[in-house]
Amino acid sequence: MKILVINAGSSSLKYQLIDMDGEHVLAKGNCERIGVGGLITHSTADGKKIKIEREFPSHKEAFLAVIEMLTTGEGKVINDMKEISAIGHRVLHGSEVYKVSTKITDKVIEDIAAFKDLGPLHNPPQAVAMKACQEVFGKDTPMVAVFDTSFHQTMPEKAYIFGIPYEYYEKYHIRRYGFHGTSHRYVSMRYGQLKGKVEGTKIVTCHLGNGSSITAIKDGKCMDTSMGFTPLDGIIMGTRSGGVDPSVLTFIAEKENISPSEMSDLLNKKSGFLGISGLSSDARDLVNAAHEGHHRAKLACDIVRYQIKKYIGSYAAAMGGLDAVIFTGGIGENSGELREEVCEGLEFMGIELDKELNDSIHGEEKLISTGKTEVWVIPTNEELLIARDTKEIIEQ
Amino acid sequence: MKILVINAGSSSLKYQLIDMDGEHVLAKGNCERIGVGGLITHSTADGKKIKIEREFPSHKEAFLAVIEMLTTGEGKVINDMKEISAIGHRVLHGSEVYKVSTKITDKVIEDIAAFKDLGPLHNPPQAVAMKACQEVFGKDTPMVAVFDTSFHQTMPEKAYIFGIPYEYYEKYHIRRYGFHGTSHRYVSMRYGQLKGKVEGTKIVTCHLGNGSSITAIKDGKCMDTSMGFTPLDGIIMGTRSGGVDPSVLTFIAEKENISPSEMSDLLNKKSGFLGISGLSSDARDLVNAAHEGHHRAKLACDIVRYQIKKYIGSYAAAMGGLDAVIFTGGIGENSGELREEVCEGLEFMGIELDKELNDSIHGEEKLISTGKTEVWVIPTNEELLIARDTKEIIEQ
Repeated sequence: MKILVINAGSSSLKYQLIDMDGEHVLAKGNCERIGVGGLITHSTADGKKIKIEREFPSHKEAFLAVIEMLTTGEGKVINDMKEISAIGHRVLHGSEVYKVSTKITDKVIEDIAAFKDLGPLHNPPQAVAMKACQEVFGKDTPMVAVFDTSFHQTMPEKAYIFGIPYEYYEKYHIRRYGFHGTSHRYVSMRYGQLKGKVEGTKIVTCHLGNGSSITAIKDGKCMDTSMGFTPLDGIIMGTRSGGVDPSVLTFIAEKENISPSEMSDLLNKKSGFLGISGLSSDARDLVNAAHEGHHRAKLACDIVRYQIKKYIGSYAAAMGGLDAVIFTGGIGENSGELREEVCEGLEFMGIELDKELNDSIHGEEKLISTGKTEVWVIPTNEELLIARDTKEIIEQ
Repeated sequence: MKILVINAGSSSLKYQLIDMDGEHVLAKGNCERIGVGGLITHSTADGKKIKIEREFPSHKEAFLAVIEMLTTGEGKVINDMKEISAIGHRVLHGSEVYKVSTKITDKVIEDIAAFKDLGPLHNPPQAVAMKACQEVFGKDTPMVAVFDTSFHQTMPEKAYIFGIPYEYYEKYHIRRYGFHGTSHRYVSMRYGQLKGKVEGTKIVTCHLGNGSSITAIKDGKCMDTSMGFTPLDGIIMGTRSGGVDPSVLTFIAEKENISPSEMSDLLNKKSGFLGISGLSSDARDLVNAAHEGHHRAKLACDIVRYQIKKYIGSYAAAMGGLDAVIFTGGIGENSGELREEVCEGLEFMGIELDKELNDSIHGEEKLISTGKTEVWVIPTNEELLIARDTKEIIEQ
């Protein structure tokens, strides 16, 4: 069975065609500049790479180009689009309604579009992309929505209710939702496979990339997570502030006379690594600059590592213990230096990093500790989990 | 040596006269409604209580009333105000300038007034009160300022810099300051006395009252604390929200069209226990209502206990271990139920509460655990620490 996985943005459409017999990627690519031009990059498992400029007035033309790439020319991996059994769509926000992955109907698309307050940048274009996808593939090709928020829906109320008047939860659904759910679920499931058990396990998964979040997972279920109402909360990220004393916002808003949307921009796009260092939003740049003695670059590195360390302690306390810490995402999989600093001093919790081994691990699955609390690098694979969910749901 | 300790607000003036020979309180009281009427309540160590209505147009008249109470009539404890060797003033905010308690000069009073951006409700009236105090007692009576923020000035940069553009730290001094410093310092010093050592100890002090903060203290020095730029950050309190995803503020501000100062009001005065429960800002009311089945009262209780538990884990990770947790403040000293729930599940960190003993402790100093990580109730005494600092500084 072949499943097409779609991750749509307002002007982009990433795809992967996965053969579920063996779970390997046949081809993948990205349509960019939808609505303002058009560029498709496509690559196949056997190494062919294609890059073509093409007008994409809307997501529909992008989907047509995807089919063309997959079924014709040099990048061809299937003979006919009918070979695609189903399509899995990544969706940012499922509100409190979608607690698990769901077969897409017109109602589901309407709901996803209706959650525009909760995911203003992602949900509306994702609904648009689903409609375009239906138009191109026809309603006979089943589609499944896999939500970034679903995995976190098992959090207890005490973890998701903020300390503000309860009316705002009732009126606007303001609560902690959490994101990167598919990634946290993927690596925690993989850990379960590796250990041969899920029940009774207490783990903290650290998805660290351009956006970062940390999740407490007990018995395979999310108990708490660092991102909140939006993906702004938690630890500092490339350009996002993470958690900040709320009074900082009202103070700056008053002093600088800036509007809520300017404040949102400031905290989402000009803060984090970039804002602290004044140099770059890229963790690799900061690590290099820190080694060269750039004080604020080192400060940004110190802060993120310190915050991750604190989340690990905090979630261990929340779960009443800790069996494993899992690092994933671009930074989590590749930065041995970050992993070492995060784990330093956590010996009292049973964490003993194998420093030499840790240094050598870049993106491979590996146990990198020797203590009773394990530390793992487990590369994430959100697309594969979307494909698996899609397969499972259409086979029901 | 007798020292007068002053805690001034914009319309109030609390005082304690402490005899440093034996460190006992001779008399204490409160002048209320300064500027809008006037009421003084005064009580002595031997049980006399006086309550008089009196016009207090300004802090000056209140200070005159304090002297009258201390030196004449039924509440008299000294013959002459000249018996007062020095006066210690509690000050909310010392910015980054005052890292320790400091002898008050005109320059110090100017500075305290000048930190009005950092402590708008407290610093200006405290400066006014100091001037009135000087006028009444004369410049020959030495005065010392003891800052709520000083103890936290040893925090490392990674703990106090927020994830926003660094320019705001440079321009407005926006950073984590922390508050309740005198209380955290008092109970941590008392713990040091009890254990006979300070170096090498890692403790978490939980000051839980109408305002609450939690502090990580290593080798007697503050490493991190839950309150931030203002006393709003950290865990939920009577009417304060504690930490909230910053995007919640911009979302509500936009939806409800409210100004920064209205937002500040919302988060400081209508949130926390009151906002979540919709019932009361008093923890005792919530505990009672929770026992009677009030869902949102129970939720508020659950949230604060869960947040404290997470801070303990987080700070243990930050310090690389934990020797003791100390509960203090009105709630911390008196709520066995809260202490039990906070400690539940922390056995993996060596915390084993003696539940029966814990239940019986209300405001007494007591070790209430049996595990290798100790749990203590230590009643706070900020006034005594202010008096001690004052004595030490004037004797230098």
